[in-house]
Amino acid sequence: MFNDFKLVAETPVYVQVKNYIKRLMMQGALQAGQRLPSTRELAELLGVSRGSIIAAYEALTDEGLAYAVTGKGSFVAEMSTPGAHAIPAWRMNWHERMNRQARLSVELDHMKRNQPGLRAKKGTILFTSIAPDEQLFDLENVKRAFLDRMAVEGRVLLNYGYAKGYKPLIDYLLKYMEHKGVDLTGKDMLITSGFTEGLDIVLSAIGRDGGAGGRMLCENPTHQTAIKNLRRHGFEITGIPMEPDGLDLAALERELQTQSFDGAFLVPSYHNPTGIVTSAEKRLALLELLGRYRVPVIEDGFNEELRYTGSHVAPLIAMAGQGNGVVYLGSFSKVLFPGIRVGWVLADRELIEVLESVKRARSIHTSTLDQSLLYQYLLNGNLEKYLKRARAEYRRKYEWTKACCERDVPYARLSGSGGLHLFLEFPDGFDTWELLELCADQGVLFTPGDMFFVDEGGRNTMRIGFSRVSEEDIEKGIRVIGAAAAKLLEAVKEWDLNNG
Amino acid sequence: MFNDFKLVAETPVYVQVKNYIKRLMMQGALQAGQRLPSTRELAELLGVSRGSIIAAYEALTDEGLAYAVTGKGSFVAEMSTPGAHAIPAWRMNWHERMNRQARLSVELDHMKRNQPGLRAKKGTILFTSIAPDEQLFDLENVKRAFLDRMAVEGRVLLNYGYAKGYKPLIDYLLKYMEHKGVDLTGKDMLITSGFTEGLDIVLSAIGRDGGAGGRMLCENPTHQTAIKNLRRHGFEITGIPMEPDGLDLAALERELQTQSFDGAFLVPSYHNPTGIVTSAEKRLALLELLGRYRVPVIEDGFNEELRYTGSHVAPLIAMAGQGNGVVYLGSFSKVLFPGIRVGWVLADRELIEVLESVKRARSIHTSTLDQSLLYQYLLNGNLEKYLKRARAEYRRKYEWTKACCERDVPYARLSGSGGLHLFLEFPDGFDTWELLELCADQGVLFTPGDMFFVDEGGRNTMRIGFSRVSEEDIEKGIRVIGAAAAKLLEAVKEWDLNNG
Repeated sequence: MFNDFKLVAETPVYVQVKNYIKRLMMQGALQAGQRLPSTRELAELLGVSRGSIIAAYEALTDEGLAYAVTGKGSFVAEMSTPGAHAIPAWRMNWHERMNRQARLSVELDHMKRNQPGLRAKKGTILFTSIAPDEQLFDLENVKRAFLDRMAVEGRVLLNYGYAKGYKPLIDYLLKYMEHKGVDLTGKDMLITSGFTEGLDIVLSAIGRDGGAGGRMLCENPTHQTAIKNLRRHGFEITGIPMEPDGLDLAALERELQTQSFDGAFLVPSYHNPTGIVTSAEKRLALLELLGRYRVPVIEDGFNEELRYTGSHVAPLIAMAGQGNGVVYLGSFSKVLFPGIRVGWVLADRELIEVLESVKRARSIHTSTLDQSLLYQYLLNGNLEKYLKRARAEYRRKYEWTKACCERDVPYARLSGSGGLHLFLEFPDGFDTWELLELCADQGVLFTPGDMFFVDEGGRNTMRIGFSRVSEEDIEKGIRVIGAAAAKLLEAVKEWDLNNG
Repeated sequence: MFNDFKLVAETPVYVQVKNYIKRLMMQGALQAGQRLPSTRELAELLGVSRGSIIAAYEALTDEGLAYAVTGKGSFVAEMSTPGAHAIPAWRMNWHERMNRQARLSVELDHMKRNQPGLRAKKGTILFTSIAPDEQLFDLENVKRAFLDRMAVEGRVLLNYGYAKGYKPLIDYLLKYMEHKGVDLTGKDMLITSGFTEGLDIVLSAIGRDGGAGGRMLCENPTHQTAIKNLRRHGFEITGIPMEPDGLDLAALERELQTQSFDGAFLVPSYHNPTGIVTSAEKRLALLELLGRYRVPVIEDGFNEELRYTGSHVAPLIAMAGQGNGVVYLGSFSKVLFPGIRVGWVLADRELIEVLESVKRARSIHTSTLDQSLLYQYLLNGNLEKYLKRARAEYRRKYEWTKACCERDVPYARLSGSGGLHLFLEFPDGFDTWELLELCADQGVLFTPGDMFFVDEGGRNTMRIGFSRVSEEDIEKGIRVIGAAAAKLLEAVKEWDLNNG
């Protein structure tokens, strides 16, 4: 005994000794009533100071695991160690106990299945990510924001906060949204743990009473996370095809005439995956049309800040004026730091009041630390500085990626006028999964587009995320994609000639 | 125009100027094509430096809201401001659109209704909270942990993490649970945004297929949050009465014989609200019994660390050995910092794999900042130091509260052998809501116990949370409660004499 103790760095020695002895107790190697070695003796055995042993014994006593007898030393306390009792270890089949929503969560978990990035070896060029480039992060300003805020109200930040969110942040973001042209009359805000929680909370609350499930509209293709969560929540999805300036209004109206819907999930700016920005005219027509059929809009403000060219377009919730039919989901995850999980829902005040209760039931509130750090970071004027740098950097990459695609993949139609990705559409019959096979062999991965489609479509499309790829690798990777695509197109043409 | 500009502290001046002009644009006070004042002119009008105006104009140009014409100055860009278009503002009735779960979330939201604390005036003695006393928080160690971790891997922490959690924290907590005697074979861990999210995720995944709703067992009384979430998720609740050493096993067995259950939610240590610690013998009997009926256990590790007296008792998941029937929910929120939203689910590996997908769908992952800060704080050995102080402090308050109750409220049966609260049970017929009325008038609030009951019971019980009340106020408050109770008991006795 006592011969397998190993010290590690950072953690205080006495804590390590305490945990070591605790483990011996739990394993039954040290039994109740047994005398522990003297502090001098154990210090020698473990090769640590006597002070550490004394502190460790004190800590064990504190936890009720040992007791001291004056003049006699420390003893192992009576305790209900699991080892001391024989319990029939019963096993259950958890898979049988999982319900539909849980099973769907696994089935639709793209990170676990169909994720090309999973196969990445070192040196692979990864066009699969649209996470921000962490080299851009201004750590010093983040640290400053943290310390500033801790100095102002550290104790408050570490205790319970409010389900609705951290008040100074809410006030700041309300102003921020007002600057985007939103009329705040009758509206309110709920802070969530990122965009995704916001969407999940909204979807969990709307419609679908009486079992059979509701119906939702969305652009087709759209956001994977949105498709997944719409399905998980039991919504039937009706996808509306995209045109270069936003979704096909005629197709939308046909659907609205035949069925009723609980809502429409829309990504009007730098749409994921197509990168399309819905035009101002179409936004107005959309709002008018959905309003006529009383279908509320769930607007994803995704990447709104990552505009490189073109004029300013107001979000739908701004265009709706004092109307209460738009629920806006915002987040700085893609433009600032995804590790800080803060998003917001801006909507009708009565709706926010309900969602606040849902949020409280689900997770009490979003981390006050994250919220207050973000608030102070914004207050210190860092967003503007950061966006200036980030926009310049991403814009360069965006233009470079576009130029490379135009040169090396002329067979595909490009879309995307901002954000962190481009979308490629090949001729019908082309299969981007086959293309991925070829490219993966040469160390280049991207995201096949069918993952973003709510139906069987999109086999001939793909998304290229460039945010985390160097310019050198962008050029190299796209050349590989172009050459592989040429080879595949040749094969398709030949097949057509022989069979068509 | 330009006469209602007001500077505030902290935010850079140019950002304030930019936002000010943006607002004028959004309001339509500045129109597309209009020339903005020269930088010199505006600097004078607003009383700020010319450099700030130049930076503000640049930022507006960056955002696509303005454009510069060489030699002529800056102009307002063409944009789709909401003010420029007339849209019929349509309004919907959101309440009609809310589903059962959302409505239940509001209805069961104790923070919004029935919360005695809501009526608190300044100077009120609040026994309603069981949040930690923030005067105990060791801010310096929290700051140190943050800066240490940022120095090691700041960029990684701010980018996306993993749904399962921050690996170093998981490894640390697995060891931590092993030290509590848990056999980790076949088990795994998911990090959640606090205990509550853990519970909500587990409940969202188990049983209730085919609509009609499942059934759950729990101690009666129990945790408000648990009752709320069991109901929200559509479970019928069967409460088992408590005895001084844990729930009534005979009553439990009777229920198990008559119905099947999807699970049992149990709080074996410092049970909320009764403060009861289930004895080691009862824990074993419980596990054996539930195992026989194949009912999985959801164990709330609540306050396990806040043990003041008595011997160490292993959690149920430790006693279950290699069995996989116990799902353990842990958190340091009550012992450390609630503002940092980190909890964990320790359970069968296959179950964790499913819950990981659910977590990803709901919120991608828990704040990496919170997780890494907590990890570094633990690694630095602060938990032990903090617990030593916190235990001493809370124990003193606990004993003081107990002594005051024994002296001044001798009519009530006391329970609670640790944690941050005591539970009082008055004779049948006594109504603690009436007591609260009397006490509130004298500036003392507590939590009536019926809130914790799954049935109509508990009108004669109450919870006293002492963690955030000074010793002076504890004595004063309990004297008020005692005197008011005496008055009420007198009235009850009289009524009995006249009517009994």
